Amino acid sequence: MTKSSWSVYLSGEIHTDWRQQIMRGAQAAGLPVTFAAPVTHHGASDDCGVAILGPEPEKFWHDHKGAQINAIRTRTLIARADIVVVRFGDKYKQWNAAFDAGIAAALAKPLIVLHGPEHAHALKEVDAAALAVAQEPRQVVDILRYVIEGELAGYTDQSQAAE
Amino acid sequence: MTKSSWSVYLSGEIHTDWRQQIMRGAQAAGLPVTFAAPVTHHGASDDCGVAILGPEPEKFWHDHKGAQINAIRTRTLIARADIVVVRFGDKYKQWNAAFDAGIAAALAKPLIVLHGPEHAHALKEVDAAALAVAQEPRQVVDILRYVIEGELAGYTDQSQAAE
Amino acid sequence: MTKSSWSVYLSGEIHTDWRQQIMRGAQAAGLPVTFAAPVTHHGASDDCGVAILGPEPEKFWHDHKGAQINAIRTRTLIARADIVVVRFGDKYKQWNAAFDAGIAAALAKPLIVLHGPEHAHALKEVDAAALAVAQEPRQVVDILRYVIEGELAGYTDQSQAAE
Amino acid sequence: MTKSSWSVYLSGEIHTDWRQQIMRGAQAAGLPVTFAAPVTHHGASDDCGVAILGPEPEKFWHDHKGAQINAIRTRTLIARADIVVVRFGDKYKQWNAAFDAGIAAALAKPLIVLHGPEHAHALKEVDAAALAVAQEPRQVVDILRYVIEGELAGYTDQSQAAE
Amino acid sequence: MTKSSWSVYLSGEIHTDWRQQIMRGAQAAGLPVTFAAPVTHHGASDDCGVAILGPEPEKFWHDHKGAQINAIRTRTLIARADIVVVRFGDKYKQWNAAFDAGIAAALAKPLIVLHGPEHAHALKEVDAAALAVAQEPRQVVDILRYVIEGELAGYTDQSQAAE
Amino acid sequence: MTKSSWSVYLSGEIHTDWRQQIMRGAQAAGLPVTFAAPVTHHGASDDCGVAILGPEPEKFWHDHKGAQINAIRTRTLIARADIVVVRFGDKYKQWNAAFDAGIAAALAKPLIVLHGPEHAHALKEVDAAALAVAQEPRQVVDILRYVIEGELAGYTDQSQAAE
Amino acid sequence: MTKSSWSVYLSGEIHTDWRQQIMRGAQAAGLPVTFAAPVTHHGASDDCGVAILGPEPEKFWHDHKGAQINAIRTRTLIARADIVVVRFGDKYKQWNAAFDAGIAAALAKPLIVLHGPEHAHALKEVDAAALAVAQEPRQVVDILRYVIEGELAGYTDQSQAAE
Amino acid sequence: MTKSSWSVYLSGEIHTDWRQQIMRGAQAAGLPVTFAAPVTHHGASDDCGVAILGPEPEKFWHDHKGAQINAIRTRTLIARADIVVVRFGDKYKQWNAAFDAGIAAALAKPLIVLHGPEHAHALKEVDAAALAVAQEPRQVVDILRYVIEGELAGYTDQSQAAE
Repeated sequence: MTKSSWSVYLSGEIHTDWRQQIMRGAQAAGLPVTFAAPVTHHGASDDCGVAILGPEPEKFWHDHKGAQINAIRTRTLIARADIVVVRFGDKYKQWNAAFDAGIAAALAKPLIVLHGPEHAHALKEVDAAALAVAQEPRQVVDILRYVIEGELAGYTDQSQAAE
Repeated sequence: MTKSSWSVYLSGEIHTDWRQQIMRGAQAAGLPVTFAAPVTHHGASDDCGVAILGPEPEKFWHDHKGAQINAIRTRTLIARADIVVVRFGDKYKQWNAAFDAGIAAALAKPLIVLHGPEHAHALKEVDAAALAVAQEPRQVVDILRYVIEGELAGYTDQSQAAE
Repeated sequence: MTKSSWSVYLSGEIHTDWRQQIMRGAQAAGLPVTFAAPVTHHGASDDCGVAILGPEPEKFWHDHKGAQINAIRTRTLIARADIVVVRFGDKYKQWNAAFDAGIAAALAKPLIVLHGPEHAHALKEVDAAALAVAQEPRQVVDILRYVIEGELAGYTDQSQAAE
Repeated sequence: MTKSSWSVYLSGEIHTDWRQQIMRGAQAAGLPVTFAAPVTHHGASDDCGVAILGPEPEKFWHDHKGAQINAIRTRTLIARADIVVVRFGDKYKQWNAAFDAGIAAALAKPLIVLHGPEHAHALKEVDAAALAVAQEPRQVVDILRYVIEGELAGYTDQSQAAE
Repeated sequence: MTKSSWSVYLSGEIHTDWRQQIMRGAQAAGLPVTFAAPVTHHGASDDCGVAILGPEPEKFWHDHKGAQINAIRTRTLIARADIVVVRFGDKYKQWNAAFDAGIAAALAKPLIVLHGPEHAHALKEVDAAALAVAQEPRQVVDILRYVIEGELAGYTDQSQAAE
Repeated sequence: MTKSSWSVYLSGEIHTDWRQQIMRGAQAAGLPVTFAAPVTHHGASDDCGVAILGPEPEKFWHDHKGAQINAIRTRTLIARADIVVVRFGDKYKQWNAAFDAGIAAALAKPLIVLHGPEHAHALKEVDAAALAVAQEPRQVVDILRYVIEGELAGYTDQSQAAE
Repeated sequence: MTKSSWSVYLSGEIHTDWRQQIMRGAQAAGLPVTFAAPVTHHGASDDCGVAILGPEPEKFWHDHKGAQINAIRTRTLIARADIVVVRFGDKYKQWNAAFDAGIAAALAKPLIVLHGPEHAHALKEVDAAALAVAQEPRQVVDILRYVIEGELAGYTDQSQAAE
Repeated sequence: MTKSSWSVYLSGEIHTDWRQQIMRGAQAAGLPVTFAAPVTHHGASDDCGVAILGPEPEKFWHDHKGAQINAIRTRTLIARADIVVVRFGDKYKQWNAAFDAGIAAALAKPLIVLHGPEHAHALKEVDAAALAVAQEPRQVVDILRYVIEGELAGYTDQSQAAE
């Protein structure tokens, strides 16, 4: 069976290296995956609007111009994705992560949510729309390996095994 | 021009009376609007899954069963809505509010976001997808009155007025 | 908040009175629900094609003509439904029930599956696409009452209750 | 006329080598086809959820977590497919096969159903949604060869042949 | 079970009274059906464009302006229909009937084709997309009665009848 | 044949009484039509954003807030419309009229364009997407009368007239 | 500006060499086009169903099985096409050509119709949905060359030419 | 993270070299972008219909045939685009630019509008649907560079920079 490529969008928290962990893990496993993400440089993400289109005296419009330019990237990449992974971290409100999850859900994209157990209750509506709720980046890699390659550690690949 | 009815979904914060303010305001203005909302009884919303379908020893599945039943209501009502209003309050994470906003955006529903200025930066991605960002429930009523009836306080209704 | 009407499609098993139980329960609760279902007269359902369009010597085409006419009804009513309930009973293969569940899932209709615990493993893919898995018709009524009216037995309706 | 590639999803029964027969047949015929399928290792398919995301004491949630991860794969591959083939075998309930057929039908994917004559009556609703009902894997290969290449054994390729 | 209304579009041949037969039959059976159709006045249908928007010296544009105005009606009514019935008669090319059938098929509308056996071979592609192929208007009425009311002559309505 | 109601959106020029002419004409003809339109009070349309949501020192954001609130109305009403009529007058750039026409075209709404012959060349791309190009409001009424009622002045209603 | 590839589906008449003319013309012009078409071997097209899936004593089902297999090909290739060309020739009913045109129209595919002037009146509804009505295959090649390359004989390529 | 290709459609004004500026800028930045545009040869764009399909004595139909052929190109390329840029210049009505913007908005394509400040008021409805409003072609290049590569002049690429 020919392998075809999968695209995975990594949304959410930008202050730890969870994206790198997933990308390194997928590469180590040789998975045919293309990753995409928002711009994770916090300053650039905040200022892109005014840096390119000119300054705004009002903070609201400063933010607005930047957020709209970021939306050009994020909306396009979510729409292209086969799978959307959304990470909620320990800090900040991260409403944009939940917002991306809502977009993914409405577009019927398979959704994997990644967060610690302490956020489980607050994220129950988001989790309820997900096909997997993981706690660690390596679990996301394991899901991708299973979903794309059909490989699961400890289960030899003999597809006609007895039940 | 015949008036037809508009449906408005009121998502988000459940601990203040902002929904009542909007509904009373719309009623006072005689607007042809039908309002919908999630179940706002916090306890019922948390427990509906286990109360109806049986108890779960694990808190995660307790939450999951409830959140999925709530989704039957919220997804249906958002999909039916002409306009989605999402309110972010002062307390709690409110990721479900941002999640609903994402769904509304992906479904191309006109989105009105309602929050205080202190949340403006954290909500910039959500605001960037909205057609109006209000701070007070009465502003939402004014928007509905203008959008549905074409009436704006201080502007007499003479549609061929000089430019 | 104005009540609007909900439409619920009742798919699956036709040899017990589960539909009547749900409809009676919903009526007793005063729910604004319209129910729909396939033709549940087994003989008519099998023979409608040849009875109307003429006999077929081959059993395969006898079945085919009937199944296609039944599809006019079932496809239309599923597409109109706000909620799809699928019941799996103790007898027969009931592939058409699972087929309807697949249609409902692909159309993003909220899905409630109704079956006994003995079928849980065999139905896990269908259950995984559902927003509720019930065992008794009265649970479906309770879900409808909660989802449509926001009422849950034992939870008084005070929407601003403390957390 | 340039050949472009076709993708075919092979859903259903996992205990015989019908997929291998079709894939070998297509390869022998030199057809430009990419095949996809669910994970066919029965044990891995059942246990993937708990193996990756952690154990569940309740069998229902054990199954649920696995079925949802499997859905990431199956939903994506069905959505990408040009043609969906669904095989019903002699054993087991195979509700997931019928469920996949429903998804394919709702997504307007051309559907080929593969089963023995003994299941014809029970599968009439599924067959009624199909564009071909085959009994043998080699017939599926013949359909693919005809549909993709326009080649039919015994019919020389002279497209302006007299009527 | 509450009856809801069905809309049926009657496309095709305009020189016999087949539409009247179906409408009278549905009325006699008390079916909750709304019928729609193209403008069946042949002259008005041909000339509406130039009569309203001004004459055209070229016959091609005379026809074009009329056909486009007719499309405002037919496209809207087909899109609204629950069921599309297409009648092919003995005379004329009736390409517009086949064109309407294609539109209905692409919109996933249940399609009933009505024609005599002499056209069966020429219409095989259209018939292959239909859920019923009838020869007489009364058969269409019988289908509507069965599909909407679940009533089939000779089959008493006892839905739990033994298999 | 039962009459059902049609909704018609009247987009574009706001400085002459063309909307009133069409509405009066439709009323005089007894057509079952509901009309909708943008807010035609020029000042209110320009200022609604700042009047409701607070002043903006920058003219660009003053306009932006108003235009987005107007979009809540116009997008909703265009999406609901069965037919979209777009009027181009003698003055102003009227880019919003062409923008509405583009939305209507992309949503596959039947489009009627209304303008004088002097704009024909500049509007050729818009006209090419329309199903009728009229010069006078009364022609729009005639089209509605024909499309909805099947009535055309000078053509008696005998639908089986000889060819 | 980078050239990307266009796919063109050639539907309709199968008894003249119009497809070859278009394909040769496009090749001579070096156009980046991939062509697709139904199976044009008349006998194979009629018999593919029974040849692969087994004989049918009834001619209607003989035709039906073949037409459904042909639909696997034609529906897929029309859905993939950027442009659909439909040719109506001098012989046969060609209802399938008009049917394909209806599918293309409903899918919003740009439609080019190709027929002689003697069929103009009978095809006015189909032509009214087309973006071009050509009489000769070479005109289709010219349209493709203009649409894809922007080249038009006699017009030198100087895009800033004076008006 | 693997780069994938983006397609950008450049709509609107055809009398200055703004397209060349953007294309050169993107090339200089090494962006993986494919650009598309309408035919920008004014004469060819006006005359393509009659040049290919034969002359029309009426100017309206001369224009109509050309505009429809142009629509084959523009509709296809807008539908394929990831981003649509619409330029309004100093001259002409440019209703087709606004029309394209409407199509892009309805298709949920990210929209960048490019115009001088003197048109801001007249374009407010179009701007309100855009994710960026630029004044200079180089700003569009900067947006593409940021959106696709995540690079913003003056912001070094250290994605985990402190907040």
